[in-house]
Amino acid sequence: MQNSPNLQVCLSPDLFHLFSDRKSIVVVVDVLRATSSMCLAIENGIKEIIPVSTVEEALEYKNGNDFILAAERNGQLVKGFDFGNSPEQYLSPDELEGRTLVMTTTNGTKMINIAKQDHEVVIGSFLNLSALVEWLVNKKQDVIICCSGWKGRFCLEDTLFAGALSSKLMAEGFHSDCDSVLASGRLYSASKKDLYQALEDSSHRKRLSNLSINNDVKLCLAHDMTDEIPVLKGKSLVAANKPYAVSK
Amino acid sequence: MQNSPNLQVCLSPDLFHLFSDRKSIVVVVDVLRATSSMCLAIENGIKEIIPVSTVEEALEYKNGNDFILAAERNGQLVKGFDFGNSPEQYLSPDELEGRTLVMTTTNGTKMINIAKQDHEVVIGSFLNLSALVEWLVNKKQDVIICCSGWKGRFCLEDTLFAGALSSKLMAEGFHSDCDSVLASGRLYSASKKDLYQALEDSSHRKRLSNLSINNDVKLCLAHDMTDEIPVLKGKSLVAANKPYAVSK
Repeated sequence: MQNSPNLQVCLSPDLFHLFSDRKSIVVVVDVLRATSSMCLAIENGIKEIIPVSTVEEALEYKNGNDFILAAERNGQLVKGFDFGNSPEQYLSPDELEGRTLVMTTTNGTKMINIAKQDHEVVIGSFLNLSALVEWLVNKKQDVIICCSGWKGRFCLEDTLFAGALSSKLMAEGFHSDCDSVLASGRLYSASKKDLYQALEDSSHRKRLSNLSINNDVKLCLAHDMTDEIPVLKGKSLVAANKPYAVSK
Repeated sequence: MQNSPNLQVCLSPDLFHLFSDRKSIVVVVDVLRATSSMCLAIENGIKEIIPVSTVEEALEYKNGNDFILAAERNGQLVKGFDFGNSPEQYLSPDELEGRTLVMTTTNGTKMINIAKQDHEVVIGSFLNLSALVEWLVNKKQDVIICCSGWKGRFCLEDTLFAGALSSKLMAEGFHSDCDSVLASGRLYSASKKDLYQALEDSSHRKRLSNLSINNDVKLCLAHDMTDEIPVLKGKSLVAANKPYAVSK
């Protein structure tokens, strides 16, 4: 049992210093909506995603060829950008095929840039859940599932995804002595029949209570729409095991 | 509704910087075992409790009259001390009556000393749950329930208590947009029929898996053994609304 990989769940970027061990694979989770959009973008032809922490960094790519610039702050598209973090924007292969997405979001890209300093980073969402489980099981390495939260705070949607992923990994033989694994698994178990309803009273849903966001929430809670596993190579997220060149 | 007091749950001392607002009452929770022992100590005659952060600070009181010195680190009684954080040590009025308890523990006293800088601090545990609800409702102020966790990490037992307390306060008209309130409430709701069983796989139970600790766990999960509400006045915890003098 002790030779099986270890599993932990980190509930906030502000707790990551307690988990960082320079060896575990980090699964970055920002279900509403950055990591869901990233999975769909790769599925629909985006060649690579460059996650950046600030709007200014995103704008540095403004005049590059084949770049799509995306920026979200506080749930809103940033003025001057055509793309935000709505997953519906990443469903059209005609528009995305072969292009590079430069993306900055309130929480998800921040978590990626914290984790990448010492860890292999992979992107998780309900949209690639089953493929991600298979990929992590094959890696046979310790895993930390990192919830991006909301400005450092615990958030329900990322925790429910952490519970979904951790339940499946524990069933595949991972071991854990982490209470966040227990708690997120129990929360997911109590909610999995209707995740949309389970998020009804969540702060994110209240924060963004308009029709288009509700459509986004439904799309982000769909399971297994893609087999793609976005992994960080250098400064770019690319599909795992695909020989994409990393630009710039 | 918006005039009703606001309720938040902070899942770790390492997240408290996100919550501190210089006005909310902070309920410090360290169910296993510091805040449970504090409630029992006040119930059984301790006049005041001085929570200190380090063993060295506790030792400064060594030669004082009527001081009981208590120190716990990593779940164990610290060498040279007669008292730790086991609640069974705080059940004997004959030994405790009128004395001052100086206490340092791995997590709970640390959380108290972080919170006290800008907030009114009150001590919560299952042992004083109903009395605490009544006291907080009467105060009509915003409340932050702060879990002490384990060395900064999320822990299940404090979160279950946060869920118990927050469920009762929400039923009394508090409002909240905090996902930690939702999540802790759901975890408690799913576990309240058998809290002891719900902690069976928790990291704290695994860490301290010996018979005496199991007895401690059972005692700490007992509800409403006291009506005492330990509140911080100056550097000491004293029973709320009792005119105890603060020593030193």
